[in-house]
Amino acid sequence: MTFSEQLKADIALIEPALEKYLSRETGEGYDRIFEAAKYSAMAGGKRLRPVIVLEFCRLCGGDIEKALPFACALEMIHTYSLIHDDLPCMDNDDLRRGRPTCHKAFDEATAVLAGDGLLTAAFETASAAKDVPAETIVRCIRILGENAGMNGMIGGQVLDMGAEHRKISLDELRLLQKLKTGCLLRAACELGCAAAGATDEDTLARARAYGEKLGLAFQIEDDILDIEGDAATLGKSIGKDAASEKSTFPSLLGLEECRELAAKLTEEAVDAVKPLDGHAFLVELARSLTGRTR
Amino acid sequence: MTFSEQLKADIALIEPALEKYLSRETGEGYDRIFEAAKYSAMAGGKRLRPVIVLEFCRLCGGDIEKALPFACALEMIHTYSLIHDDLPCMDNDDLRRGRPTCHKAFDEATAVLAGDGLLTAAFETASAAKDVPAETIVRCIRILGENAGMNGMIGGQVLDMGAEHRKISLDELRLLQKLKTGCLLRAACELGCAAAGATDEDTLARARAYGEKLGLAFQIEDDILDIEGDAATLGKSIGKDAASEKSTFPSLLGLEECRELAAKLTEEAVDAVKPLDGHAFLVELARSLTGRTR
Repeated sequence: MTFSEQLKADIALIEPALEKYLSRETGEGYDRIFEAAKYSAMAGGKRLRPVIVLEFCRLCGGDIEKALPFACALEMIHTYSLIHDDLPCMDNDDLRRGRPTCHKAFDEATAVLAGDGLLTAAFETASAAKDVPAETIVRCIRILGENAGMNGMIGGQVLDMGAEHRKISLDELRLLQKLKTGCLLRAACELGCAAAGATDEDTLARARAYGEKLGLAFQIEDDILDIEGDAATLGKSIGKDAASEKSTFPSLLGLEECRELAAKLTEEAVDAVKPLDGHAFLVELARSLTGRTR
Repeated sequence: MTFSEQLKADIALIEPALEKYLSRETGEGYDRIFEAAKYSAMAGGKRLRPVIVLEFCRLCGGDIEKALPFACALEMIHTYSLIHDDLPCMDNDDLRRGRPTCHKAFDEATAVLAGDGLLTAAFETASAAKDVPAETIVRCIRILGENAGMNGMIGGQVLDMGAEHRKISLDELRLLQKLKTGCLLRAACELGCAAAGATDEDTLARARAYGEKLGLAFQIEDDILDIEGDAATLGKSIGKDAASEKSTFPSLLGLEECRELAAKLTEEAVDAVKPLDGHAFLVELARSLTGRTR
């Protein structure tokens, strides 16, 4: 299978599973919350994080079907973070993936609750994984919780809120992005290994390094796209960083140095997984992600 | 030990554990989120849900220290739900337990994130329970997720939002409250049994019945307090239900019938646990809760 066939096959597993986990119609008057959750969760997107979960599971010799609950749980957490991030009291965004954001399509209270619902559903889904040893489930839930929590993604979000309308240092920005974007990408890599029951420390360290490098490269590319991208293609508002005087990698380093840094980090991610058997997909994935502006 | 000594002893276990789980100072600029989470989590309150967890664990012959992570996880979920409930786009409350609500003491974005952080910390804390079999941890996390999720508490919250400014039927109100308040109380009872490794179906059914009856009785009392209570004693705004023309048990049934129903439900809760050895504390607890207005 080529890279893009494999990617398509993974997404073809992930999307129906995700939709199924979020489809629990009750007829009791609160179905609106499942609608709102699915509106955001099924709005497309690259499915990068769940694809990485499946691919690290495969690389570690695991059954990727059994990794699906964890892959979907991570995507639910990613989706909830976008919904809450877009709220008026946070980034106040109207457009996401080419459609009105959740609080625009529904209302603010529903968006808060849909985010809460997706976050809770992530742990519900992970805890209900079938034919997976309980130890593996607990390990996966711990990875999800630690990386999504206050010492992970939420901590990064707090730093991000505190960084608006002021200039921050490159070190501060790196920490912010390491937490805000990096934690879930690193979690994806770890989850895949954990779902396969892998315990080899070298493999785990390489998986984590891949996630961290890729996460940072990916964020730098995102910042570049906010300057050079096209709203119609990206499906989201652009130029917001500059408008809010937000410190970004391009504002601190310049565009040229950003491109070099993203390329360097991508190759470091590639180098981290190269010694592992079955690395081909992950290498192509890394390179495809940071080529978005070229 | 008397009832009140036992209650005090339980709370003396719960509060330091809760504070410890939420104390992870990093020095990295996002400590504010732990502050906000602790501001709300350590603001007093009856600790009803975690106390019930410990007491059902004790009743089932379990080690209550090992139930602490689950008891605290449930209290974190309860606290997050209050923070998000108080937000301007939801109930827009300024006062909670005698102090400014989280979004008033901090800001709206921090309150959203502190709620998200507490919800995530609940699952982190549960998944990190020590000296507890993995099967038990998974079972407890499933109880937490199902009862807090879109088919549980969040579903109830959605119904509650939809019930503002219109008259709803008694059946609708019962369903709403069963989900919104009842699910976490039932979860408390189930969690205690699960933490002790109890699998006896009769005990579990009795525990669930106790939680459901108590949850409804408790909510009816809350509605009565909103009419007859005193803001200073309660530490929260009163008269809000009437002001927002919300359907409540007193508005549908009248005060006198509400008092009778609450008393009847309390006795049904008592009857559910009476056949179980070591029920004395739970019986007194139920009776103490619905005596708040008398």
